[in-house]
Amino acid sequence: MGIRRETIVYEGPGGPFEGVAAWDDATDDRRPGVLVIPNILGQKESDNVVAERLAELGYVAFACDVFGQGKRTERNTPETSKYMDELNADRPLLRGRLEASLAALKALPVVDGDRCAAIGFCFGGKAALDIARFGAGVLAVVSFHGVYDRPDYDSVSPIAAKVLVCHGWNDPLGPPDAVTALGEELTDANADWQIHAYGGAGHAFTDREMEDTGSGFGFNADADRRSWQAMKDLFAEVFG
Amino acid sequence: MGIRRETIVYEGPGGPFEGVAAWDDATDDRRPGVLVIPNILGQKESDNVVAERLAELGYVAFACDVFGQGKRTERNTPETSKYMDELNADRPLLRGRLEASLAALKALPVVDGDRCAAIGFCFGGKAALDIARFGAGVLAVVSFHGVYDRPDYDSVSPIAAKVLVCHGWNDPLGPPDAVTALGEELTDANADWQIHAYGGAGHAFTDREMEDTGSGFGFNADADRRSWQAMKDLFAEVFG
Repeated sequence: MGIRRETIVYEGPGGPFEGVAAWDDATDDRRPGVLVIPNILGQKESDNVVAERLAELGYVAFACDVFGQGKRTERNTPETSKYMDELNADRPLLRGRLEASLAALKALPVVDGDRCAAIGFCFGGKAALDIARFGAGVLAVVSFHGVYDRPDYDSVSPIAAKVLVCHGWNDPLGPPDAVTALGEELTDANADWQIHAYGGAGHAFTDREMEDTGSGFGFNADADRRSWQAMKDLFAEVFG
Repeated sequence: MGIRRETIVYEGPGGPFEGVAAWDDATDDRRPGVLVIPNILGQKESDNVVAERLAELGYVAFACDVFGQGKRTERNTPETSKYMDELNADRPLLRGRLEASLAALKALPVVDGDRCAAIGFCFGGKAALDIARFGAGVLAVVSFHGVYDRPDYDSVSPIAAKVLVCHGWNDPLGPPDAVTALGEELTDANADWQIHAYGGAGHAFTDREMEDTGSGFGFNADADRRSWQAMKDLFAEVFG
């Protein structure tokens, strides 16, 4: 029939939350699920479009909400980062909301809960890495221009999820020292990991609405296409 | 008809040289050519096998020789690195031999000389990077566990070939500082580049004949498979 969207309201710490799931309803078969974690602005249409692209690949995708229903911000305002800031200051709270979001994904009748992954963008990339760190029962996580500082709780060891980090080399939020530290962290945790660094790309390289003005932020078509391909390659590994 | 191998003897500085080309001779159509540059041991059967795998992908591959006809070494002997050492000490000579090898590839009647690439392993990875640096008329280069020190001649700017560096994170020949320096070099040269770092992998991660004993050297099946896939993805970009 085509790609179906469904708005899902779900509970969790500080909830309710509201996200959008997408899947191809030509079949009711259970299939792998992919959590899509939004950036600094919160759940929005561009996340739903990502979910639809994943649905076209044969997955059930859920563009989740870790800020709370109605809690969204706009670019370039004094309040752009306010909900993100709260979660950066309370990573265990972020963890609780990610667990609730994964549970909402796995509760969908078309999802095979044993075969899930998580991806995220910017702040959502950090959150995807946290999912690997706290061991939430996913096979893989992908961070697109994420942020690499560790949470203040211990990671599982070994980290069981396969980790793919797609990184813009010019990203001022991820300088070489931070990338090296992430590589060391993942190595210490015995993770199966990859970091793909893209020359000429900065933070938010997947964000078609952010022009690259040379400041280390903005859309980069090559990195966008290559990172999506790398994600597909990893999903082919873990989902078959 | 299947994959055909042909031994090619060719001239160049310090020659003659002897390599092996492979292609699918079901057609005589011109197609993209891929230079395969061997590791420290020189031209050998495992390079020919790589050339055959590339031929199966639809390319003409040429496992070249930069040491000279009959100049080959064995592992773990006092002389393992002797021919490599000579070229590391004379990067312009290596350049001349790479140019001769590329010319031999492009001279094959089944090769579209405007659509070529170069890949290499270990020392050959360094040589592939040098091809990008000196601007030899290829669309892409791929370094598998290469070595990243620059030659003593100036690179072209911009570097026109797309560069993919497949790197084992535990490679003692490529510590984080060397990787960062390579990223800076390629950025300064305005290259279109990617570095893919593989956790848990060391130097020679594609080398099925070298067991990984935890010393930072040896075969790693995940990194081998992922790097080959990344190469295929890049070739799909540049060759269509």
